[in-house]
Amino acid sequence: MTLAALIDDLVSANHILYNEGVVDGFGHVSVRHPERADRYFLARSIAPAVVKREDIMEFDLESDAIERGPRPYLERFIHGEIYRARRDVHAVVHSHSPSVIPFSVTGTRLQPIFHLGGFLGAGAPIFEIREAGGPETDMLIRTPDLGVALASTLGSAAYALMRGHGSVAVGVSLKQAVFRAIYAEVNARLQANASRLGEITFLNAAEAANAAATNDQMVDRPWELWKKRVSGS
Amino acid sequence: MTLAALIDDLVSANHILYNEGVVDGFGHVSVRHPERADRYFLARSIAPAVVKREDIMEFDLESDAIERGPRPYLERFIHGEIYRARRDVHAVVHSHSPSVIPFSVTGTRLQPIFHLGGFLGAGAPIFEIREAGGPETDMLIRTPDLGVALASTLGSAAYALMRGHGSVAVGVSLKQAVFRAIYAEVNARLQANASRLGEITFLNAAEAANAAATNDQMVDRPWELWKKRVSGS
Amino acid sequence: MTLAALIDDLVSANHILYNEGVVDGFGHVSVRHPERADRYFLARSIAPAVVKREDIMEFDLESDAIERGPRPYLERFIHGEIYRARRDVHAVVHSHSPSVIPFSVTGTRLQPIFHLGGFLGAGAPIFEIREAGGPETDMLIRTPDLGVALASTLGSAAYALMRGHGSVAVGVSLKQAVFRAIYAEVNARLQANASRLGEITFLNAAEAANAAATNDQMVDRPWELWKKRVSGS
Amino acid sequence: MTLAALIDDLVSANHILYNEGVVDGFGHVSVRHPERADRYFLARSIAPAVVKREDIMEFDLESDAIERGPRPYLERFIHGEIYRARRDVHAVVHSHSPSVIPFSVTGTRLQPIFHLGGFLGAGAPIFEIREAGGPETDMLIRTPDLGVALASTLGSAAYALMRGHGSVAVGVSLKQAVFRAIYAEVNARLQANASRLGEITFLNAAEAANAAATNDQMVDRPWELWKKRVSGS
Repeated sequence: MTLAALIDDLVSANHILYNEGVVDGFGHVSVRHPERADRYFLARSIAPAVVKREDIMEFDLESDAIERGPRPYLERFIHGEIYRARRDVHAVVHSHSPSVIPFSVTGTRLQPIFHLGGFLGAGAPIFEIREAGGPETDMLIRTPDLGVALASTLGSAAYALMRGHGSVAVGVSLKQAVFRAIYAEVNARLQANASRLGEITFLNAAEAANAAATNDQMVDRPWELWKKRVSGS
Repeated sequence: MTLAALIDDLVSANHILYNEGVVDGFGHVSVRHPERADRYFLARSIAPAVVKREDIMEFDLESDAIERGPRPYLERFIHGEIYRARRDVHAVVHSHSPSVIPFSVTGTRLQPIFHLGGFLGAGAPIFEIREAGGPETDMLIRTPDLGVALASTLGSAAYALMRGHGSVAVGVSLKQAVFRAIYAEVNARLQANASRLGEITFLNAAEAANAAATNDQMVDRPWELWKKRVSGS
Repeated sequence: MTLAALIDDLVSANHILYNEGVVDGFGHVSVRHPERADRYFLARSIAPAVVKREDIMEFDLESDAIERGPRPYLERFIHGEIYRARRDVHAVVHSHSPSVIPFSVTGTRLQPIFHLGGFLGAGAPIFEIREAGGPETDMLIRTPDLGVALASTLGSAAYALMRGHGSVAVGVSLKQAVFRAIYAEVNARLQANASRLGEITFLNAAEAANAAATNDQMVDRPWELWKKRVSGS
Repeated sequence: MTLAALIDDLVSANHILYNEGVVDGFGHVSVRHPERADRYFLARSIAPAVVKREDIMEFDLESDAIERGPRPYLERFIHGEIYRARRDVHAVVHSHSPSVIPFSVTGTRLQPIFHLGGFLGAGAPIFEIREAGGPETDMLIRTPDLGVALASTLGSAAYALMRGHGSVAVGVSLKQAVFRAIYAEVNARLQANASRLGEITFLNAAEAANAAATNDQMVDRPWELWKKRVSGS
């Protein structure tokens, strides 16, 4: 895949995440530079649905822009510090996906309720910004230190919640990170609805791992649909 | 009805199921060959919303493709084994319809809450893959044996849930199977919402059977609407 | 208003009720003949969203078609018997509006939770078909006697629920009946959501009556919007 | 910003509030005259989604129209009395936003559950019209006195609920008032969903204030998206 095609996919990912209800006017998605592991691409500070090729900026792992340019996202450290901590990660989605947030502020663990949520494994960890940033933050990951703390909570997981804020989904590719961001939202909606019907039988650890491995081979199928929807063709 | 018209209806059924919120990037629908009861038609491994005529493949009841072709769905055995077990069935929908899944993982039985859910009869049976496949599957019906077990759970019913996965709807025709897939989703949403208001009076056995018999005469009416919506005319 | 304009409004009402989520492939709306109180207009048996001028039929209060024509709705007696019992009523909507059905099958009374639901007064009565039709019906109002019984449950109310089936909304005009069908659905959704937050303060009898009287002067405002949406202009 | 551009923004705000699900056929938004603090602009009595430039009227703080014109909103006193009481306020949104209403009629306080709801501070006050208007109103703010009472309940807050009716959002600009109207609705939906999962950790006072201060710098980002959606470009 050429760099130009990757940037096109990043633009599509922005539009897809809006169209599928994961981001609204806020949220962002990045991809690691395919040839320079110490760099990543992310849009300037703009709503994902309106991102164009020319809005994509390049950053180093300090989350400094490589070239002087327009205002970047305040929370770009989410991306830089996860790329630094996780060499396996090549794409990061940050969102305020609505069905997920209730799980970030209550004692209920977000767990895989169906095979497409298998990547949630034993349940999504929750980042409490008060632990790293104290009780008087504005909730945002606006410093490298907060980014490091978030990456530490994420650990080796595919998905982490951020209390009173949102979530991060990571993947080995843009398609996988987008898949996880979308199906974490679906899983959360299903789990919230199921929780009022009775006690839930979640996927066990083996089922979750096996389902996730199968789904990892399937990410092209929904991506084709999602891309078609945003391209209007 | 010519074979060409039936294939056109199968393509429409794929689009309708997406448009009405029953399938997303995953899920599939098949129809039995009208002249050869030991064969059925099903799309290649692709999102239902983007299926075209040329994506439709023909399978025997072993779920082997009649002609060498593109990659088929892993779970085509759902279709083949139900057609083998149920001579009355001429169409099968498999989906992860969102309102239905909570009923698959809790102790709450999906029952007919209004006349359009009459086909649910005494309540939908639930397929637990751990019984046939053990505790470490990837949740998918990826073998003939799992297909046989699912067909056995379905028995003579119109609809069955699959724990932590989704459901199957069957019918004597494409229109009836699609009707059932759509109204099982509606019925599930109504039942979940009603369950928090108080104890529910469901249709009794006679009401469910009589309503289902009436509705079976009505499947053309919503189909005309659903088809118009996907054809954009 | 000419008869032609009234029929145009009836066609619009069909489309509006679909577009605003009150009817799906099923449900119907009628209007009394402006010059002959013993007749009414109703579409042939067809999904509301696809109704055209030429689908409108004229019926007497026996619900017999004035002219030999296509198949009418099985449940046309809902309309005929309400027009017979209620001289003040000039339009009737029958639907399976989703948020309303849970109230028809549980002990929770549908009551005015906000000013736009004022027409619900002291709460909507519930028609139990088992009382008039016994325990083995198909749930449908398929006879004049069942229509009479439904009209009797409705009494002088603006809205009545039908257990395990749906509802009827009536009005002095098409616009008012459509307004009530739409806002009963909204009110039901709000009430169901509020019921899980705590005990609800409903509008009292005076507030409900006064709000309803004010809203009756306002039906043109949303109608203009709803009509614009279905006309695509 | 010229007056013409401000009026254009007011028209856009009307369309945005409909498109984002805050208003339906009812509700209204106003902006204070930028050069005359004792005047404001508000549409004539019409559904927000269909407002055009020529529907915008100018009012004094008595909520009398400056020029003889078409019928104004019955509830224009909401706007006039808030502008009189709050010199810092330059825009007011009144709506029946659906997720918010359940909080107006139950004992549950609407509180900031995530950073974008920070403007809710310690929780939204609730206006009970029975206190100012007695037990037999039609629920509407149809007099100056009721407007004064509502403004008094609002106090120095950004948002207030109106029991059995709706809400008001205010801001230093149109963009801020629209932002608050939209995110109050989102926050309410999240809070209602979270309330069934367990006890909620809300933003504390410092987090709410700091998040609100940050968001106040961000209102252009979603506005650009919302405007693009209604302009169809």
